[in-house]
Amino acid sequence: MKPLPRTIEWIGDLPGFVRLIDQTLLPTRLEYRECTSVEDIWEAIRSLRVRGAPAIGVAAAMGVVVGVQAHADAATFAARLKEVVDFLRTSRPTAVNLFWALERMEKAALAVRANLENVKRRLLQEALAIEAEDRRMCQAIGQVGAGLIKAGQGILTHCNAGSLATAGTGTALAVIYAAAEDGKIIHVFADETRPLLQGARLTAWELQQAGIDVTVICDSMAAQVMRDGKVQLVIVGADRIAANGDTANKIGTYGVALLARAHNIPFYVAAPSSTFDLALASGAEIPIEQRDPREVSEVLGQAVAPEGVRVYNPAFDVTPAELISGIITESGLIRPVNPATICACLARPAQA
Amino acid sequence: MKPLPRTIEWIGDLPGFVRLIDQTLLPTRLEYRECTSVEDIWEAIRSLRVRGAPAIGVAAAMGVVVGVQAHADAATFAARLKEVVDFLRTSRPTAVNLFWALERMEKAALAVRANLENVKRRLLQEALAIEAEDRRMCQAIGQVGAGLIKAGQGILTHCNAGSLATAGTGTALAVIYAAAEDGKIIHVFADETRPLLQGARLTAWELQQAGIDVTVICDSMAAQVMRDGKVQLVIVGADRIAANGDTANKIGTYGVALLARAHNIPFYVAAPSSTFDLALASGAEIPIEQRDPREVSEVLGQAVAPEGVRVYNPAFDVTPAELISGIITESGLIRPVNPATICACLARPAQA
Repeated sequence: MKPLPRTIEWIGDLPGFVRLIDQTLLPTRLEYRECTSVEDIWEAIRSLRVRGAPAIGVAAAMGVVVGVQAHADAATFAARLKEVVDFLRTSRPTAVNLFWALERMEKAALAVRANLENVKRRLLQEALAIEAEDRRMCQAIGQVGAGLIKAGQGILTHCNAGSLATAGTGTALAVIYAAAEDGKIIHVFADETRPLLQGARLTAWELQQAGIDVTVICDSMAAQVMRDGKVQLVIVGADRIAANGDTANKIGTYGVALLARAHNIPFYVAAPSSTFDLALASGAEIPIEQRDPREVSEVLGQAVAPEGVRVYNPAFDVTPAELISGIITESGLIRPVNPATICACLARPAQA
Repeated sequence: MKPLPRTIEWIGDLPGFVRLIDQTLLPTRLEYRECTSVEDIWEAIRSLRVRGAPAIGVAAAMGVVVGVQAHADAATFAARLKEVVDFLRTSRPTAVNLFWALERMEKAALAVRANLENVKRRLLQEALAIEAEDRRMCQAIGQVGAGLIKAGQGILTHCNAGSLATAGTGTALAVIYAAAEDGKIIHVFADETRPLLQGARLTAWELQQAGIDVTVICDSMAAQVMRDGKVQLVIVGADRIAANGDTANKIGTYGVALLARAHNIPFYVAAPSSTFDLALASGAEIPIEQRDPREVSEVLGQAVAPEGVRVYNPAFDVTPAELISGIITESGLIRPVNPATICACLARPAQA
């Protein structure tokens, strides 16, 4: 497997800056953006230059360092830190990892009672720790899941739960990369994933970069590909998982799960344990966000539906636990999926 | 219901010309194209300015008249007719109605042994007869199917089997128009229908023109809309139907049928009896045409997948008869769908 370019990384020491792949230019151009101010980071998150919950968390944490590293006045440092964190919090409304990472950064700063340089160094350490943990999480998910894949299999995935969504090798795609590292020749079908085409633009691109055989299909072709016998396994990521295993993920995932069931194809979810929200008994409690109708009525800025037509654009759907063969986490495989097996797995330490 | 613009019509007498909606400009612009030569008609069919098997048949028939009407030499008229027919035959490789309509025109010319003006008039009559039959077929399908729809229902359709695909009100959409004419308030969900977006571009446009409530969704959203309880009926068109009822239609139809079954929603096909190909025992005998990968990897000319990536692009899929609640034809409703009920229905005369 060819090495993948780093989605996001810290360059230099202190002062330093963030370098990230500008994902809005993919798949046609691989260009990096250097973020030297907190405004740069905010804009990169808001404009989806960096996306995927884990990658957003890493970007926000590094953004805090970028935002405070030049501040030399000890008396106003705490105020500046709060200003930077509050500002980054407004970059995306719903990414849970964003808020989680910013809270960790705030706590890290509070834990140090020393000179400004030490606080700044502690903040950089924390940001790099968040990044390193994310990389290890991806690695562990890959190792846990790789055993599910047999050489020669066709694997279908939806949206992008890969290297471009994390600081590591991804979640669903981490499993595919780990299987490839094990020497298994596999073939991936990437649903293009309308409306925002993350499958065609991002998943196909990163698999191609890694030298893994990939075929792009329209979302409407998944059933036919399954019927043709070309798919032996489905793996997707997750945005939020309820205590009973019901899984919210990119719109279209629920339909893919139903099609997999109709063709007797195992359907797996790969996600870090931080994706579980045990406060929710079932998926019925997960609210479904409606997004801008123009994501559907326009493609790359060009109208594809008549002016003024009504559009339905839910950002995700909920796949009921009974359609999920197993959930691959960094702490092990949850199979079968039910409240007891989920609880037991989350109580275990990570596998790597 | 507001009147729909004519998809294709003959303007004037002899000599006359063909006026058709340039569907490549929809949904952003409604513009007509005047075809005054056989080359104009050929180009309009080839470039999908006119599409949908019935509409292509009508265009080709009228194209024959356009191609011969100025020919004044009786000695070479037969040769000119053959040249025009042979040329039009090359406009699209797979549209069965194209070849059928051209054969009818050739036979019509042979039946007249009189002066040139009479032959030309007979050809125009035949072209207008093909158009009129198509309009009656749409009307009859609408009447047969309207009773399946109850006021207040949500109806999902895939691709465009409407006025824009025929000289009349369509097949699947004819049923919706007929229900609306009966005063039933209904709501239609139009799958956008990647790769060529006929649902978003054409179905949404013509339903909007007709004043029927329509919502565009991405193909990947159909399962979620069904789960929300927003859809009580699915109606689609058909490209070819085997003797056992297995139905080839636009790619994505089979997936929609599986999703409808999973949600206990009736799934109907609307198609004229000419769509049945009784020489095929089952759908397994229907070849699946692969189309240009760029239809998937580009949208409106812009790349959405990485350069050189493999693409799978089947033009249609086959929905097995057991997933089809009924087939609505101009000769009546086939329900349940099996070789015997199909045979019995096709033996009956049209209902209108």
